[in-house]
Amino acid sequence: MPSLSEDELIARFFAPLAGSAGLGLADDAALLAMPPGHELVLTTDMLAAGVHFFADDPPGAIARKALRVNLSDLAAKGAAPSGFLLSLGLPQDWTEEWLAAFAAALGEDAKAYACPLLGGDTVRSPAGLTLSITALGAVPDGGMIRRTGVAEGDLLYVTGTIGDAALGMRLHRGDETDRVWISCLDSASRTHLRDRYLLPQPRLGLAEALRSSARAAMDISDGLAGDLAKMLRLAGMTADIGLGDVPLSDAARQALAQEPDLAATILSGGDDYEVLCAVPPAKAAAFEALAGQAGIAATALGRARRGDSPPIFRTGRGPVAFSALSYQHF
Amino acid sequence: MPSLSEDELIARFFAPLAGSAGLGLADDAALLAMPPGHELVLTTDMLAAGVHFFADDPPGAIARKALRVNLSDLAAKGAAPSGFLLSLGLPQDWTEEWLAAFAAALGEDAKAYACPLLGGDTVRSPAGLTLSITALGAVPDGGMIRRTGVAEGDLLYVTGTIGDAALGMRLHRGDETDRVWISCLDSASRTHLRDRYLLPQPRLGLAEALRSSARAAMDISDGLAGDLAKMLRLAGMTADIGLGDVPLSDAARQALAQEPDLAATILSGGDDYEVLCAVPPAKAAAFEALAGQAGIAATALGRARRGDSPPIFRTGRGPVAFSALSYQHF
Repeated sequence: MPSLSEDELIARFFAPLAGSAGLGLADDAALLAMPPGHELVLTTDMLAAGVHFFADDPPGAIARKALRVNLSDLAAKGAAPSGFLLSLGLPQDWTEEWLAAFAAALGEDAKAYACPLLGGDTVRSPAGLTLSITALGAVPDGGMIRRTGVAEGDLLYVTGTIGDAALGMRLHRGDETDRVWISCLDSASRTHLRDRYLLPQPRLGLAEALRSSARAAMDISDGLAGDLAKMLRLAGMTADIGLGDVPLSDAARQALAQEPDLAATILSGGDDYEVLCAVPPAKAAAFEALAGQAGIAATALGRARRGDSPPIFRTGRGPVAFSALSYQHF
Repeated sequence: MPSLSEDELIARFFAPLAGSAGLGLADDAALLAMPPGHELVLTTDMLAAGVHFFADDPPGAIARKALRVNLSDLAAKGAAPSGFLLSLGLPQDWTEEWLAAFAAALGEDAKAYACPLLGGDTVRSPAGLTLSITALGAVPDGGMIRRTGVAEGDLLYVTGTIGDAALGMRLHRGDETDRVWISCLDSASRTHLRDRYLLPQPRLGLAEALRSSARAAMDISDGLAGDLAKMLRLAGMTADIGLGDVPLSDAARQALAQEPDLAATILSGGDDYEVLCAVPPAKAAAFEALAGQAGIAATALGRARRGDSPPIFRTGRGPVAFSALSYQHF
């Protein structure tokens, strides 16, 4: 454990990441003026070693993932990032090298996503590395897209591809039961799945499309099946989705062809950090056009219909059977 | 470990604490409208078992402390609380009984301090209980009191009494070396010191006095000696303080009379969560009157003067010697 005081640690590693609202991280608090006519959108996510990442994941990947899972929430709400606060619990065996790599990557992402560090807290965490990030964003007054409000007949869209991260996690873990399908993937596919597990891509570019066209939205963090069920249940809706209509990467397709039972992992394994939204049919063309202009693939899965049961995902062999619709946190 | 899903856990224990901005904790994010003409003040603190509290401290005390240390930062900045977000990492052996007591106490404090729960995240924390709270407050535009800006001749004030929590922590730990002074305390004094360690009292009532009269302020979390040194150093100032001018509780006085070496613990042990501020002499009377109206004791320790060295605390036996000016986080 290096012999740095907390102040030295902040000055060396984190002050360079601070935006003007962070006051150089030399005060007790940050000070943020909201742009007129805007409301504040707030989200927080905690990540713990052994649960949300492996302790030996690259420090830069841990930093980026912690920030990006929060940015993904802002993206799904139609918000533009304003900044973030970081609470960092460092284990006994932390090194300056580890922290330098962590802070450098965090700084790169903060810059790339125009989301400066506003403040934070750094503590000892005897139990192991733990991080919590609170991200703030701004939406025009009344512009935040809620999770509630899906209406009958709305088109259900997802961005990007589904299931890559969940497969990437199994690949990373490398259990014996997964040996066959993993061995059938080419090297580019393995890299793709691993990257998708390590590095979420928050869909911040979708904000305008969501605000102008979506009736409801959320980010997919616990798996498409469970998160879609949550969004639909709030509105008394359900849906029938064909597995063939769920956008999959080439790598996920290869894996699924080899091992059809991976459908449940793809749909419920979580860590996708894609946006799921409901768009009225009259606005679908405009939504797709705006998403396309932002360079974000948006795929219609199906339509919402009245019903109490969770959505069904159908394959040629029948409905996909899940042991659980979502990643289970507890 | 109870078999509750994260959603059930949130609905049962935390949704009752949510303010309207928290959207019933059923969305990905909270939505907060700032009052016109106000800026947002943000602060975050992480607490880990074995560092900031003992794992067997009462769950309600852990909850209250986590919220109150953040409210103390808002108080020192002259801000009024708007709400908070909670990240909670639960150890493997959590129980519903523990969580119910934690949430009930948190809810009582959220109500008492008009600081509703806006959102949060609950995760497994294999390494042990870890919490992070981000608190938000509002100040009139330009009204936040910074830590910087102490001027020569400013009176240095502290609220409440100093050192109780640091003594309370040693009392709680009960090391053999502390046996003599602890055994000389009466039962009321022991209870007082323990309570001050377990339950900080954020001085939110001081906000108006600070905004109208203080040039600089911070909350004392790492000990008066180190925190005063930080505030003065930012302005190129120092001070000579008589230990007799530092406000002490009767319990701390008893302990100090028994064991004069406790002066260093009292001044540098931390966990006071009192406000330290610098007030121009012309505003001192108004400051004291407003603090008095708020029912908060404010004691002048001395005056700021130019100088590079840390402030000195003098007793009849000479300056207090510190092994470290502040609680050392690392």
